[in-house]
Amino acid sequence: MYDVVIIGAGLSGLTAAFRLLQLKPNLKIKILEAKDRVGGRLLTLELPAANNSVDVWDLGGTWIGNKSIQPFINQLLIELNLKTYPQKFEGNKILQIGKKNKHSIYDSHIPKKGLLSLYDAFTLIKHVESVQTKLFKKENQKQNSHDVELYDSITLDNFLSEKTWTQCLSDCTRAAFRACLGAEQSKVSALYCLTYINSCGGLLNLFSSNSSSGHGYRIIGGAQSICSRILEIIREDKLELQKVVTSIEEIVNMKDDRSSLVRTATGETYQAKNVIVSIPPHFVSNIHFQPALSPSKFEYFSSMMPGHLIKVILTYENAFWTEMGFSGEIVTNGGPSHTSGCTSGPLCIVFDATTNNNSPALLGLIGGNQAFEYEKKTKNERKEAVLKSLESFFNSKDVRNFIVYCEKIWRQESYVGGCPVSVLSTGVTRYLDDSLRAPEHGIHFAVSELSKQWMGFMEGAVECGEKAALEILAEI
Amino acid sequence: MYDVVIIGAGLSGLTAAFRLLQLKPNLKIKILEAKDRVGGRLLTLELPAANNSVDVWDLGGTWIGNKSIQPFINQLLIELNLKTYPQKFEGNKILQIGKKNKHSIYDSHIPKKGLLSLYDAFTLIKHVESVQTKLFKKENQKQNSHDVELYDSITLDNFLSEKTWTQCLSDCTRAAFRACLGAEQSKVSALYCLTYINSCGGLLNLFSSNSSSGHGYRIIGGAQSICSRILEIIREDKLELQKVVTSIEEIVNMKDDRSSLVRTATGETYQAKNVIVSIPPHFVSNIHFQPALSPSKFEYFSSMMPGHLIKVILTYENAFWTEMGFSGEIVTNGGPSHTSGCTSGPLCIVFDATTNNNSPALLGLIGGNQAFEYEKKTKNERKEAVLKSLESFFNSKDVRNFIVYCEKIWRQESYVGGCPVSVLSTGVTRYLDDSLRAPEHGIHFAVSELSKQWMGFMEGAVECGEKAALEILAEI
Repeated sequence: MYDVVIIGAGLSGLTAAFRLLQLKPNLKIKILEAKDRVGGRLLTLELPAANNSVDVWDLGGTWIGNKSIQPFINQLLIELNLKTYPQKFEGNKILQIGKKNKHSIYDSHIPKKGLLSLYDAFTLIKHVESVQTKLFKKENQKQNSHDVELYDSITLDNFLSEKTWTQCLSDCTRAAFRACLGAEQSKVSALYCLTYINSCGGLLNLFSSNSSSGHGYRIIGGAQSICSRILEIIREDKLELQKVVTSIEEIVNMKDDRSSLVRTATGETYQAKNVIVSIPPHFVSNIHFQPALSPSKFEYFSSMMPGHLIKVILTYENAFWTEMGFSGEIVTNGGPSHTSGCTSGPLCIVFDATTNNNSPALLGLIGGNQAFEYEKKTKNERKEAVLKSLESFFNSKDVRNFIVYCEKIWRQESYVGGCPVSVLSTGVTRYLDDSLRAPEHGIHFAVSELSKQWMGFMEGAVECGEKAALEILAEI
Repeated sequence: MYDVVIIGAGLSGLTAAFRLLQLKPNLKIKILEAKDRVGGRLLTLELPAANNSVDVWDLGGTWIGNKSIQPFINQLLIELNLKTYPQKFEGNKILQIGKKNKHSIYDSHIPKKGLLSLYDAFTLIKHVESVQTKLFKKENQKQNSHDVELYDSITLDNFLSEKTWTQCLSDCTRAAFRACLGAEQSKVSALYCLTYINSCGGLLNLFSSNSSSGHGYRIIGGAQSICSRILEIIREDKLELQKVVTSIEEIVNMKDDRSSLVRTATGETYQAKNVIVSIPPHFVSNIHFQPALSPSKFEYFSSMMPGHLIKVILTYENAFWTEMGFSGEIVTNGGPSHTSGCTSGPLCIVFDATTNNNSPALLGLIGGNQAFEYEKKTKNERKEAVLKSLESFFNSKDVRNFIVYCEKIWRQESYVGGCPVSVLSTGVTRYLDDSLRAPEHGIHFAVSELSKQWMGFMEGAVECGEKAALEILAEI
């Protein structure tokens, strides 16, 4: 009989284990992970870098914000003695929008092409803020109110197109949401995205290119090192890899004590007083719950759709883009396609990915419909498409002088199935309320997408891991 | 080594087994069913009926169309020696729309409240037909064309509200889609619904109250008897119940022969040359495929959301509604709520459910948001709400003189998880094409929602079962 069985050794599950054992070291805990590694949507790889050295890069979750906007992850890093370094933003950024392959250059913290697009962007930001105030800032907000239903009945695309007048802004939001949701705007409920934006404290926190936004900092040693650090502290024997949980059944004994029987695909069973489910939300409904999940939880989890994002890292001897005065940041609608079967070029967002050790690199994102189209291509075809795009942006032969091209198609990773976050289409977010976040039958849900803060981000993952740990400690 | 392993003993899977063994009696076939019964979304129950007798009613799929619109199911019934009887349509129908609890009475085959609403309905039907011609009737239709993307970017609600002028039509379509999709219009992609309507041959085939529509006939002995008849013919030893399939792995031997290893949650393995997956589409992505499903199949299956429909049967000594001149058919927006936490009354559609043996009964549907709200209530609260609604429609005390109240909440049935059909929200249907329906790695998909004819209906289930059988026979 375990005190707690934790399903999923990603950031949420390991945070919960860490906090539980820190506050109650004698708890009997078992962590079951379906994959052969910990970290979930965090993955740090060692790649060949400049000067015949190696360095580490994140192929999954990469950035965090400062401690005033993201207190949970920053506190955890302090406790784990892990450090951060700032994302580079200095230099000219490149913007490519519209049907022609024209580029413009800007150096503000949000993309612009003339005053009109800047005005358009600020009008949209104001509009989003006013809708947020209406939807989320009221005390005792009534569910299923008219506004909630209204914004859950239209797609993000419909919502934005009403308030977006310039091609520049329209292409920019599409690129930004491809990168941060891994989905087309037309696939996502406006209410879901407004909930997401609200959990991040507004559009500027999400998208500004400066150190006060959610992508202001990176973690020295890579984001996955949070998970390996926790594992060192709580001891590896708490963890079992390649254990796919298939069912969770409630057991009530003669004394009326409640526990859960957790079964795996390979036939093992684990009995536990408490269970924490900390897996990507779209996999929760794969587990057979006995008794069944409550109607709203079932609706929510079974409707969650994983985003589709391919992340590409190119390491270089020299940061040629810096020498040319560029920050490395590119916002693009993809530009013209040079690949059969693909309607645009592959990229939506590019960032400088030079490490704290000064190993130069670029990071490219292929998201939403682009990910869908380019996933069907071979690795070589994708690489060629990425290089062609980068050549057209930087207009430099140095693009092809990379040391290594590395890519991660999250959609293909078993038991993850997508990145960076799961989304809801229209008609489901209206059922999201506090009861959805609450435990039931001794089962606690530490799912980043359910967090009230930075849902789907590392901050959200840590927050919901802490919450699950505290719920259990309060009961014991 | 089996020739064929069929996963799921619903109508699709059993049709495939029937056809395979009819044409190749020596095939070694195994059917694995997760539940403890066959029939999937078909369920026929024996209930107390008039004159102290018992009779059978369908709590799941109920109706079929005549053989000119639904040839596959009708041909199967002939081969199985099963008969049909007509749904009763004669008599006055009741319509309740708008905020006030006013009823109007009509006797046409589509609901109307005056000429204006009838004109509105026919304008909408014409508009849907013209969009369908544009979307589906072109040869060599290019995927991701502008129109495909446009109609996949908006919800069914957005699409309809542009072309619906009267409250009558708006309330009627909402009630009709709650019943036939188990979902709110705001949850469904316009393109998905247009594909669905197109597969049924148009709106009138779907919604007309006459014998030439898709709900013209019922099956003597109940719909589930199709499955039990097939099982008698192919022999029960082909079937194993309570076998939950968790993974399908491809095996290639030294001679380069391909087969699949099917694993269950309880540890059994079955090796087969061919596999037919015939389970509800939203459960397909619960199976771990090795190699992974192709990108479009994964996207499609993992995005499918089960509808939410509660079906209610009330049996009576006398068909009091017939005596009052009513057909028993009611179309309603739910009317005022008498139940705390519910925004409207429970029902969307009511039909006469009197059997071929003349056992009087009414059938009520609680769908979409109503199902969501009323699922949270107790059975007694739901029964009371249904009775209050029926009393207000028929204005008769006889409503409460029922013999038995029986309900089926499909959402709560393990390994079904919803009814009558799974739907897609915006942004996914654009990837639906013939390659999505094709087998891969020896795995065939007999999923009614993938059928080109009457998707999600018994007709679609039979069609895709026949298709999977023929695909395999062509290979052998």
